[in-house]
Order: sequence, then structure tokens, then C-alpha cells
Amino acid sequence: MSNEKQFVTEITPQGEDFSRWYIDVIKKADLMDYSPVRGCIVFRPDGFEIWEHIQSAMDARFKETGHRNAYFPMFIPESFFQKEKEHVEGFNPELPWVTEAGGEKLEERLAVRPTSETIFGHMYSKWIQSYRDLPVLINQWANVVRWEKRTLPFLRTSEFLWQEGHTAHENETEAREETMKMLQVYREVVEGVLAIPVITGQKTPSEKFAGAVDTFSIEAMMKDGRAVQAGTSHYMGTNFAVAFDIKYLNRDNVQEYVHTTSWGTSTRLIGAMIMVHGDDRGLALPPKVAPTQVIMIPIGPPKTRDAVVGRTDELYAELKKAGIRVKVDDRADVRPGWKFNEYEMRGVPVRLEIGPRDMENGVCVLVSRITGEKKVVQQDNLVEEVQQMLDQVHNEMFSRAQQFMEDHFYDVDTLDEMKTLMDQKRGFTLAGWCGSNECEDKVKEVTGATSRNIPFKPEVEKKTCLCCGQEAKHTVVFARAY
Amino acid sequence: MSNEKQFVTEITPQGEDFSRWYIDVIKKADLMDYSPVRGCIVFRPDGFEIWEHIQSAMDARFKETGHRNAYFPMFIPESFFQKEKEHVEGFNPELPWVTEAGGEKLEERLAVRPTSETIFGHMYSKWIQSYRDLPVLINQWANVVRWEKRTLPFLRTSEFLWQEGHTAHENETEAREETMKMLQVYREVVEGVLAIPVITGQKTPSEKFAGAVDTFSIEAMMKDGRAVQAGTSHYMGTNFAVAFDIKYLNRDNVQEYVHTTSWGTSTRLIGAMIMVHGDDRGLALPPKVAPTQVIMIPIGPPKTRDAVVGRTDELYAELKKAGIRVKVDDRADVRPGWKFNEYEMRGVPVRLEIGPRDMENGVCVLVSRITGEKKVVQQDNLVEEVQQMLDQVHNEMFSRAQQFMEDHFYDVDTLDEMKTLMDQKRGFTLAGWCGSNECEDKVKEVTGATSRNIPFKPEVEKKTCLCCGQEAKHTVVFARAY
Repeated sequence: MSNEKQFVTEITPQGEDFSRWYIDVIKKADLMDYSPVRGCIVFRPDGFEIWEHIQSAMDARFKETGHRNAYFPMFIPESFFQKEKEHVEGFNPELPWVTEAGGEKLEERLAVRPTSETIFGHMYSKWIQSYRDLPVLINQWANVVRWEKRTLPFLRTSEFLWQEGHTAHENETEAREETMKMLQVYREVVEGVLAIPVITGQKTPSEKFAGAVDTFSIEAMMKDGRAVQAGTSHYMGTNFAVAFDIKYLNRDNVQEYVHTTSWGTSTRLIGAMIMVHGDDRGLALPPKVAPTQVIMIPIGPPKTRDAVVGRTDELYAELKKAGIRVKVDDRADVRPGWKFNEYEMRGVPVRLEIGPRDMENGVCVLVSRITGEKKVVQQDNLVEEVQQMLDQVHNEMFSRAQQFMEDHFYDVDTLDEMKTLMDQKRGFTLAGWCGSNECEDKVKEVTGATSRNIPFKPEVEKKTCLCCGQEAKHTVVFARAY
Repeated sequence: MSNEKQFVTEITPQGEDFSRWYIDVIKKADLMDYSPVRGCIVFRPDGFEIWEHIQSAMDARFKETGHRNAYFPMFIPESFFQKEKEHVEGFNPELPWVTEAGGEKLEERLAVRPTSETIFGHMYSKWIQSYRDLPVLINQWANVVRWEKRTLPFLRTSEFLWQEGHTAHENETEAREETMKMLQVYREVVEGVLAIPVITGQKTPSEKFAGAVDTFSIEAMMKDGRAVQAGTSHYMGTNFAVAFDIKYLNRDNVQEYVHTTSWGTSTRLIGAMIMVHGDDRGLALPPKVAPTQVIMIPIGPPKTRDAVVGRTDELYAELKKAGIRVKVDDRADVRPGWKFNEYEMRGVPVRLEIGPRDMENGVCVLVSRITGEKKVVQQDNLVEEVQQMLDQVHNEMFSRAQQFMEDHFYDVDTLDEMKTLMDQKRGFTLAGWCGSNECEDKVKEVTGATSRNIPFKPEVEKKTCLCCGQEAKHTVVFARAY
């Protein structure tokens, strides 16, 4: 049974060491590999295909909401970064610089983009002349680089893949509507496709995007209680318009600055998805992004093997025709039980078993990765049954993750209380905050938690700042974060 | 009629200055803009959407032929390039180098990838152990950079977008089959989707990919008679396997090197498509990649306007529902005739006109961008009629391009003959070649033409070398090229 050998390594249990569990799982399931370039990973086909499904779900919604894709150069002249003061301060420490090209030293260094506000700004100033040219609604799918000191596959890598929307509008009202609309699109995709419940809210000033007026985010809770910022949407005001001179003639024939937004999600969603749904058996992939949604495993003794495999192939063709991503594992030299474990580890949402007796009865067995529920279904009705179970798996994943988040959401009044919680339990805390940087910094210093966002709909409104005891301006979600 | 103003600039006729015609058209049709980074362009939404349609056509065929996508880092350590001698010599002069990152000078310089054989090779050596792991069939969609001295939008830019397939096989036979299969896929997409006829053949040794054993290409003829290499597929032998130590245990339990291939197409296809199909009125876009396939223009006097626009919107909804990419231009302050010119310039394959008398008769008029043919069609049957005309436009574009290529294909016996042709006519020449670098170099020096490929099916077999007069080893297509 030589094919079974390579899978002998065990997965570290989540309770023992969550970080090791994560690395074990993503390596073992062939989602990624480390690359020879510091902090950069290789997205292997199963990892990349998850991204392809996220991309197509996002892209469809961007297009429905009137956006179009474009592509801008990845090199950004150094002088561009100097034009927006906060922006340069925020990104400068993380930039890689191209200093030589084509055998010559460059006159001006080129940064490899960490984000593209500056180069979009430069072009928008050429393209936008009149209110008739507005709004400009462009999205870009691209690779970006932020030279990180500490990296973690998918969640924080030096080079990563993302989308960045950059829009320009006549006024603040429209730009703010856009900012909120795209935050809502993110929420719909992350909840509806990745089955990850999120908390929507506004970032505190210290956590906002470098150059933004306001930043909004969706935050997700991992199974170790830490937060992942799963998407951000920024209202830039006229900051970049002033820096890049993006003016237009308004309806009253007066020159005005445009108001801009930007919004982004990245391959870190893959990491979040793994940490929200995975368990000690391995990955658990939401059906809408799983590269393989159904794994078919014919079982039974050698004498009935050919017949069972033949029937399996027929059913495979039916499922495939219906657009279901399905595979058959009919290897004879690997035991079914071993296969069951393997595909559970790989997170395949639904397993289909079929044996000689099932053949006689015109049935087969569907098994849910998430609940382990076994359901005997009629072969005649297979496509519908499979689609139903895929929906069930998605819903079950979402409600389990939501339950987990509710169970690990604590409302605290003092810094001590928060420290105790952070040290002894996993989860998010909700606390009052006076609005001062000092108190926010102190929370981080004492508890290791950072402000995630000021939720639009907090469960309770806190009256006093957990740190200084003064009147609370905001009720804030604090958590340790990736 | 202020909306009409910005379009007053004329397009330079092709016969007057083909290069200026090209730049006029791509700027005026908003396909691209120059960027502040030398040799890099911005792909504006209409230009990028053409690439999205090319991508999805290619990607579907890659997946049908068993390939999967992955993503590898764009930075490649300098030492990797040293491992394959020809490869480093071929690409070194064009590399941009990252020498600083995160505020520090790097110990080893990182090249921004010009192509990814080396980093794929490095990873494949880790992933491939046994014949059971083969073949490995991976494709990557990515940006790459080659620091070019002379650039031309889409056709030759410093940064461009492409796909690169990298595969590993047990033996030469399978690797060569793959090389040919992907060349065939390219041909199908370029002919079947972009309506560009191509000549398939093998590159001469001096024109092959740096590090390949054999390179094959598809070559297209532009309207100025120049060639564009529209796609290449390489058999690498064991060159990269030896350089990166990609070995596997074969079926006889013996360590062997894999045989690899790579194949690529890029955004230069957009440039080729424009130069093959465009005319003095502007762009002519093949329907399968046109961002707008049908432009609907309601016409007639103000008193019937509302009714006509209303009916137009209903028909619009029908076409859209059928998956046709359709737009309505119902601006009241722009004359229909001006709109006709505008959308012809933008290359929209089919125009739909509808006026008050058409309303009464339940008809509308379809106009082909390519032939100018007008067809009165029943509104009841509109979807089918539109689909039919889109197909017609595609077929007409392909056969016109094919006719053009046949009309500009000359078979020559001597260098003088070729020189005269190259100086006085536009087109490709077919000539015998002895196989020596000297003769190939001399052809280039004297005529400006380079060997494009040794076609698989030459129209005639030439007996003597056009240069030295000795026996011809090959019959070769020579042309000036982009």
C-alpha cells in the first residue's frame, strides 16, 4: 500500500498548538509551499483554485455594482509616494526598491507597489475633467508587495494577491455611499461564499489606512480567538485628489477636487477561511470555493469492483454535467478508510460512497464533512441531493462559526478584566473607549489586543472607557489579531 | 453639442503612417494610456476587458486539457539565473533588480521575473519524486517584466501580462506531445476567438527561447505586412531539469531527469488583433472579445423619442438576458450620424438602429462593422439575428485576414528578390535556407527581415538557400517583425 505512505504524518491538534496545526494542515493538503524568496509562498493548485473561486464571486459583484477592471503598472516612481504625507509614512518602511534595470542604475528608484492609490491618482488627474467623467469606478486584480518582518502563509506574506478598487466621485455623499456599498459587498461574499461571519464597523484613527479620512473593515474570528481583518473600505476625502491634482469642472462650471475611495481584499481570506472552519481532522472547505466539492469512493470486494466503478463513473458524469466539482478515487491499492481520512483532511465538503449493495438498491451514501451525517439517497435523484447537501454544509459551517463567535465574545468594563480574558480565554472583547490614542496604546501594551473596529451594531453600548474610566465615546471591539 | 467635441481629432490613415494610425486608434478608443513609468502602459477598462475575454477563452482550454493554475513569487534570486547558462545570457540584459527592501540592502539581488522557468524548476525539484507525481501540468497568469529599449503599447512593453505554462513529464515523447498540444490550443484561440489566421512552425535555433531545445510559434501578419509572434511553445529537454535537479524514480526504480515544456501568450495579442483587423475608421473588434458587441441607437424626431427609447430598452433587456454584451446610446444631445462614427471607431461589431417607422413595422436594422451590410430584421427574432450577425462578423474578419495574408505572401529565391519585396511591398516571404547562422544574419542585415518560423506546411518546398545558393535544409518564413 505504498500510496498511503506519504500521508502518515499527523496533524498537530488545534488545542495543542494552533499555529502548528495551521502549518501542518496547509502543507499536508498541498495548498501552499514555502518559496526560496523570503516571506513569499507558492500558491499550489488547490490553494490557488480557492482564490479563483473567491475572485469570480467578488468580480461578479463588482461588475454588478458598475465597476470595471483595469491594469496599472506595478512600479511606482519614488516621487509619487512623497505627495501624500501620511501615505508615505505608512508604507515607506515596507517597500522593495528597484534601483537597476536593463543593465543601468535608474535615475529615480521604483517601488514595487504596496497598493496603487498614487498611480491611480496620477492617471485619474489626466482622465477626469468634467462632472460628466464621474464617477470613475475601477477595480484592479494584482500582486502587491509589503516587505513584512514576520510572515505567515496566506495571512501575511511579502507578496500577495489582491484586488483594489479605486473610485472618484463628485462629492462626499456619493464617495461615502460607495465606501459603504463595497464594505457590504465584502460582507456578502465573505459570509455568503466563505461562510465566515464578520463584524462590520469603523477603524479607530490609529488603525486607519495611511492617507484615508475613514476606514471601515470587516473582522472575522479565528478558532484561536484571534481576529483577521478580512476586508477594508476607505473614504479618502480629497486627500489624494489634492496630492495628485484630480480636479473637475462641476455642474456650476467651477473647478473642484474629486472625492475618492479605495477598498481591498486579498489572499489572506484563504488563511482566514482555514482558521475559521478547520478542525483536528484537517481542512474544512466551504462548498462554494472547494476545488473538489464531492469525492466519490467506490467500495466493496474485488469481485464486484468493476461493476461498482462502472456505476460510479456514470454518476460522476451526471454530477459533472450539473456543474458540480466532483472527483472519483477508485484506486485499488488504497483502503477506503484511508481515503475517507485523506479527503476529510483535504476538507472536501461531501463524500459519496457506493458499494455493491447500494448498487442493488439504487442508492448511495452522502457524508457531510462538517457534521459527519450520513444520508442514504436515491441515485435517480443524485444531483438534487448533492446540491442540497452542499447547501447544508455551507449553512452549517456558517452557523457553527457564528455560534463560535457569539460564545467567544465578551463584554468588559476594565483593563484588568480584559487582560484576564485575553490571557485565559480565546475571543473578542467589547469595551468602552474614550477616543484617546493613549488609552488605545495602553490596551495594546497591557493585553496584546488592538482595536479591531467600532462596530455599527454593538451588542451593548458601553458607558465608560475601560482604560481611563472617563466617558466612552465609542464601543470598540478589541482582540489580538493576525 | 458639447459631447461631440472631444472626438474631433482625426485618425491618421493606415496608408499614410501605420504606426501613427495604431497609436491614434488605441488612444482614441480608450484602450490604453501611457504611464509615468518608462515603457509601461495602463490598460484602461476597454483594453483590459479584451484581455479578460482572451484569458477566459485560454483558461477554459487549459483546464480542458488537464492543466491547473498556480501562483509563484515574482521575485527570483539572482543565483537562480546562473543555473541555466543560455537562459541567463538571454534574459540578463533585460532584468530589473530589487536591491533594497524594508529599509535594508538585500544580501542577494532579486530579479523581477521575466519568465518563471527557474523558480518553477526549483519547486518542481521538491515536488517531483516518482513517476506517480508526473505529469505536472501547471499554468500561471502573471505580470512579467523585460526592460525593453524600444517599446510599443501592447506589442512590446516593459511590464506585460501573460500566462506561462510549465509542465514536467516522464520522457521526451510526452513532453513533445504537450509542446505541440499547447501550440494547437494557441492556434485555436487566436484563430477561433481573435479571428487572426496564423502560421504554425518551428523557430530557427537563433530565434528559440533561451534554454529551450526547440521552440515553436504561431506567427500573424499585420496590415503593414509585419509579423507578430502571437504565441510560443517550448520543448526544454532536460536542460532545466539538470539545472534544477528535477529527478524522479522511474517505473524501473531508476532516477531520471524529467523532460519539461513551457508555453506562453501575452497581452501583445491585443496589439496584434488591432493591427490585423483595424481600418481607417478605427478599431474593428472580433465579437468574441469585444467589450460591447452590440450598440443600440434609437433614432427619429423628438416627438417619437420616448416611445422609441422605451422599445429600445425592452429589446436591450432581451439581448442582455441572452448573454449578449450590449449597450444603448440614447443621448439626446448627440446626432445619430456622429454616434455611428464613434462606435465604428471603437470597433463595436454590430450596430442596431431603431426608429419610429421600424417600431410600426416591428423591425430594426442591424449593421455590420466589418462589411457595412445593413439587415432589416424582425424584433421578434432579434436575439437569434444578432447572434447570427456576430458570427458572420467573426467569420468575415477571419476570412479577410486570411485573404490579406495570402495576398501578401511571396515566395522568393534570392536575397535581392527579398530585399526588393521588403522595400516595395508589405508582407511575408518564403525562402530556402541552408541552416547556417551566417546566412540568417545576412538576410537580416540586408533586408531587415528575420526568420519567423519554419512552417509545418509550407506552400512550396524551396530547394536552395536564398543567401548562399547551397542546398536548402529548410523552407523558412522571413518577415520584418514587431
